Amino acid sequence: MPFCEYVSKMPEKTTILKGFSKLSSEEKLLVAAGHCTDPAAAESDLRSFHHQDHDIQKILSGISENTITNYPLPYNVAPNFLINGQMYMVPMVIEESSVVAAASSAARFWAERGGFQAKAGKLIKKGQLHFLYAGDVEKLKGAMPVIVKHLKESTRTLTRNMENRGGGIASIELKDQQSIIDNYFQLDVRFDTRDAMGANFINSVLEEYAAALNAFLYKTKGFDERDFEPLMAILSNYNDECLIEVSVSCKVDALEVATAAMPAGDFLRRFVMAVNIAESDVYRATTHNKGIMNGVDAVILATGNDFRAIEAGAHAWAARSGQYRSLSKARVDGKQFTFSLEMPMALGTTGGLTHLHPLAARSLEMLGKPDARKLMMIAGAAGLANNFAALRSLVTTGIQTGHMRMHLSNIILKIKASSEEAKRIKKHFANKKVSYQAVVSYLEKLRKHAT
Amino acid sequence: MPFCEYVSKMPEKTTILKGFSKLSSEEKLLVAAGHCTDPAAAESDLRSFHHQDHDIQKILSGISENTITNYPLPYNVAPNFLINGQMYMVPMVIEESSVVAAASSAARFWAERGGFQAKAGKLIKKGQLHFLYAGDVEKLKGAMPVIVKHLKESTRTLTRNMENRGGGIASIELKDQQSIIDNYFQLDVRFDTRDAMGANFINSVLEEYAAALNAFLYKTKGFDERDFEPLMAILSNYNDECLIEVSVSCKVDALEVATAAMPAGDFLRRFVMAVNIAESDVYRATTHNKGIMNGVDAVILATGNDFRAIEAGAHAWAARSGQYRSLSKARVDGKQFTFSLEMPMALGTTGGLTHLHPLAARSLEMLGKPDARKLMMIAGAAGLANNFAALRSLVTTGIQTGHMRMHLSNIILKIKASSEEAKRIKKHFANKKVSYQAVVSYLEKLRKHAT
Repeated sequence: MPFCEYVSKMPEKTTILKGFSKLSSEEKLLVAAGHCTDPAAAESDLRSFHHQDHDIQKILSGISENTITNYPLPYNVAPNFLINGQMYMVPMVIEESSVVAAASSAARFWAERGGFQAKAGKLIKKGQLHFLYAGDVEKLKGAMPVIVKHLKESTRTLTRNMENRGGGIASIELKDQQSIIDNYFQLDVRFDTRDAMGANFINSVLEEYAAALNAFLYKTKGFDERDFEPLMAILSNYNDECLIEVSVSCKVDALEVATAAMPAGDFLRRFVMAVNIAESDVYRATTHNKGIMNGVDAVILATGNDFRAIEAGAHAWAARSGQYRSLSKARVDGKQFTFSLEMPMALGTTGGLTHLHPLAARSLEMLGKPDARKLMMIAGAAGLANNFAALRSLVTTGIQTGHMRMHLSNIILKIKASSEEAKRIKKHFANKKVSYQAVVSYLEKLRKHAT
Repeated sequence: MPFCEYVSKMPEKTTILKGFSKLSSEEKLLVAAGHCTDPAAAESDLRSFHHQDHDIQKILSGISENTITNYPLPYNVAPNFLINGQMYMVPMVIEESSVVAAASSAARFWAERGGFQAKAGKLIKKGQLHFLYAGDVEKLKGAMPVIVKHLKESTRTLTRNMENRGGGIASIELKDQQSIIDNYFQLDVRFDTRDAMGANFINSVLEEYAAALNAFLYKTKGFDERDFEPLMAILSNYNDECLIEVSVSCKVDALEVATAAMPAGDFLRRFVMAVNIAESDVYRATTHNKGIMNGVDAVILATGNDFRAIEAGAHAWAARSGQYRSLSKARVDGKQFTFSLEMPMALGTTGGLTHLHPLAARSLEMLGKPDARKLMMIAGAAGLANNFAALRSLVTTGIQTGHMRMHLSNIILKIKASSEEAKRIKKHFANKKVSYQAVVSYLEKLRKHAT
């Protein structure tokens, strides 16, 4: 058996492994387990995360490459998200403790105060064909109307389906970038991809544009395709037209119960100050926005969208003024408090993994099969909810009280305390500082006394 | 049974759901399934993702809150990562197709050319105590040496364990921020958290500093604790000292086989230009850095670290010059090509989920139980590998060729083609443009001819 031979000849630590991608998933699992301290235990452990339904596992194993098993992340739900008058139970996939508890708590708090008001901008995504052009620039600019027509016609087979759904090419513009690099230009293309994130669509069209522009310059009198050198054709994740805006608002008095720790006036003064600090200090802004993304990414993961795309777009956009700033804003107008979030959010509810991944499909069902705009608003609301909850904790009791309670549960699981011991540990630490060391010491003491 | 009653009284769409967090995981699953079109199917589907081992499921269900099941993400491995002379098989958790194939391909390419050279900076993480101080500022500044001593002593029980591991408080500095807000100051604290990400440690110490500073001002002659108002105590994810630098380098001639599409000289000229464009154009830079994070985040997820923290820090840092720029750089010095990545990367290999999550623990084992610095370098190498692979495709064949092949597999799974049909579809589309519509049409044609 070639595979056994292969495993028996496990490569030395610095030898290049050849043909790995061609092994079966099972063989890859064995090779990977071979890198662990106890290969047999690792093998059975890795295999234990396979889905028992072969068809479902086949789907999951077909998503990426060199897949050897499934990595489980907690699939959670946060109820009581009232958004534009509609109530949602929001699925959130996240490994960080407290995030779902915080989102749920803030959602309920705001549901009792009118909920989230949200709006989504255009479903416009951007893409660029980067190229060098050594010919007569004015002539190229002059020919743009004809070129645009030609490009659109050349890609009709690719765009027809999207056009039938009400989307397609929104605009094509020539951008002179010679200040960056000699002869460097862009075709800046705006795509309306409707309810799809549209990455494959955009990239396919842009690559076709390179060929079509080349063909145009070849066949059109007065142009020479040898002046043209396409560099790259690729979508942009800086989707500054595909924005969402989510806000919560209430009378200042309605915040009285936000915390037992202090009066509404003090709470608000401190809350607004906290947001203003995140407007000016990059060390604080980074973590402030990270807290927003905790909620946003959890919804993105649960619905089969791509969190790296939204992260990159959001943070780059947060720096658009030349200073990296908070994505959310807080203000008090007379007796009215408003807390809002604006950020790019190009999500899809069709295509990609949204229906291929069995739980992503369930998430969308749970949300009432939203279109892209609705999903964008839901993800935004989750972000604002987490930001509110984090700031509320920070300016009142501090975040560690709640967080350490969650952390305590993790420690208890890790040190394998019995459920009787767990009960006593929880009671003991109810009003004490939690640290791993302190819990271990306490458990040791418990056990010593028990024997 | 109270729960049945509860389910039978499923709330109206805009009614607030009370007491949800107190339900059992099983009850929560039923309520969530009740929001789906076919609750019974959703229920059994959600439940099918539970791990069969009750103890493992208990750990997974204890990580977050309102957890109803596990969300599976593909757990993949990318072999042939040669980093500082050591060979790694890198576990990558990611749902985007092509990322692992790209990482593996770039890793092998560079393993044959000396591999990745990497270094990691200090394990210094930052934290801030934000506060207002209405007293005599010069006097406060003058007392800082005594205050620092007092703060360190007051938190000894919290820091002892970290100090035993060689870490602890690296510095405490008073920062005057009155230009932002009247009376606003920070204690900027630098923590050495060794191999832990250290979030709980940092937040606990900072919160204790607020109490300790208050106590100091209360008991020390010439100060009044009523001048002091602590605002927030919280870590920062902008870890600009905890950087990694990863690079690959080879003779220009050794790139001849980088692509069959063009000579090494042309390839390099185009590659360097592509990186330079990402230095200057935010639309391109965002997606360029997103590609880096594809690799980085996949390693972060696989090892139980927090990708939102690294995302926020990386992108905010990418904007530190006032313009959002590429995190990687490419250059040709004479006959030598060098491609490098520098970015903040505060990861942990102990604490948090790193050993609590069963597969995160396996990932660390597979990597030879690296310390934090090694893991940071491995994640960085994955980022640079993905960036290299993406740029190599973009400036040569375009990314769609490879990507659409992956995409085709997903479409085949989705449209439930038989394996015989799949074979014919793959053959048919070997040299054709892939689109969902085209594949569906072809399958229809196949089936029509078959009947």
